[in-house]
Amino acid sequence: MTTTDEFVEANKAYQQGFDGPLPLPPARKVAVVACMDARLDPAKILGIAEGDAHVIRNAGGVVTEDALRSLAISQRLLGTEEIVLVHHTDCGMVTFSDDEFRQGIEAETGIRPSWSAEAFPDAAADVVQGINRIKASPFVPKKDHVRGFVFDVATGAIDEVTTA
Amino acid sequence: MTTTDEFVEANKAYQQGFDGPLPLPPARKVAVVACMDARLDPAKILGIAEGDAHVIRNAGGVVTEDALRSLAISQRLLGTEEIVLVHHTDCGMVTFSDDEFRQGIEAETGIRPSWSAEAFPDAAADVVQGINRIKASPFVPKKDHVRGFVFDVATGAIDEVTTA
Repeated sequence: MTTTDEFVEANKAYQQGFDGPLPLPPARKVAVVACMDARLDPAKILGIAEGDAHVIRNAGGVVTEDALRSLAISQRLLGTEEIVLVHHTDCGMVTFSDDEFRQGIEAETGIRPSWSAEAFPDAAADVVQGINRIKASPFVPKKDHVRGFVFDVATGAIDEVTTA
Repeated sequence: MTTTDEFVEANKAYQQGFDGPLPLPPARKVAVVACMDARLDPAKILGIAEGDAHVIRNAGGVVTEDALRSLAISQRLLGTEEIVLVHHTDCGMVTFSDDEFRQGIEAETGIRPSWSAEAFPDAAADVVQGINRIKASPFVPKKDHVRGFVFDVATGAIDEVTTA
């Protein structure tokens, strides 16, 4: 039995007592961009219920071009107005460099990715980088409420990153 | 008080009773790629606990280049072996076309995105597209367990998409 099989079983319990459907646009008008890390559940750490918020996640919680695509769709088509970035302590993204990662893949497969792995040495600094990328994007219209945090995987706390 | 302020308040309750830190590599060796939709909480619908799984999310749950970056990092550096794709019914991505979206942004800002919005007319067909993209990627090494589902926002059920 694979983990995927276990997910299918778990879903049967979820269907019991399911009360839907909710409206499509996020009720609390916010989009979260967070790391894919297994220890970080954005709904739990921020108190998000079903229907409340868009949640965008990738390796690092990095504001990539694809995150900007998602944010553009979130704001332009579905009415969100705030953005919350969540990085975290003990992130895998600080354990390697872009060059190492791309060269490792090239050595193994013969093909070097054309993209950056988006590794970063410091989570808080990468939150600032993400805020700067959002502020610079012509495709994300609402920028009055863009804030970023580092989630502490040891304590459960989120610490706000202050920008200059 | 913004939604972000409410998130900061909610996090204080989360810290009470927090029991960490958990190990970095996902315990159940799986990465989920799901839509950012507000009604779809991957942890709840699949029975995922903190520490179990990587969760990657974007507009549509599309297997974009950035999702492949995240999957490459997930498998190559953090040991995941299964991939689960989750799209859903009543998705915003079926309500517009790529051309419309890009032209709308150009009309408003004078700048046309160089990226596709990744809109799709059919959720199940886009799950198949995602599986095909993963199978074709030289950067994702483990492809024996790649399955996809459509989450029904009216019933809470996940229906598996079968590939030919």
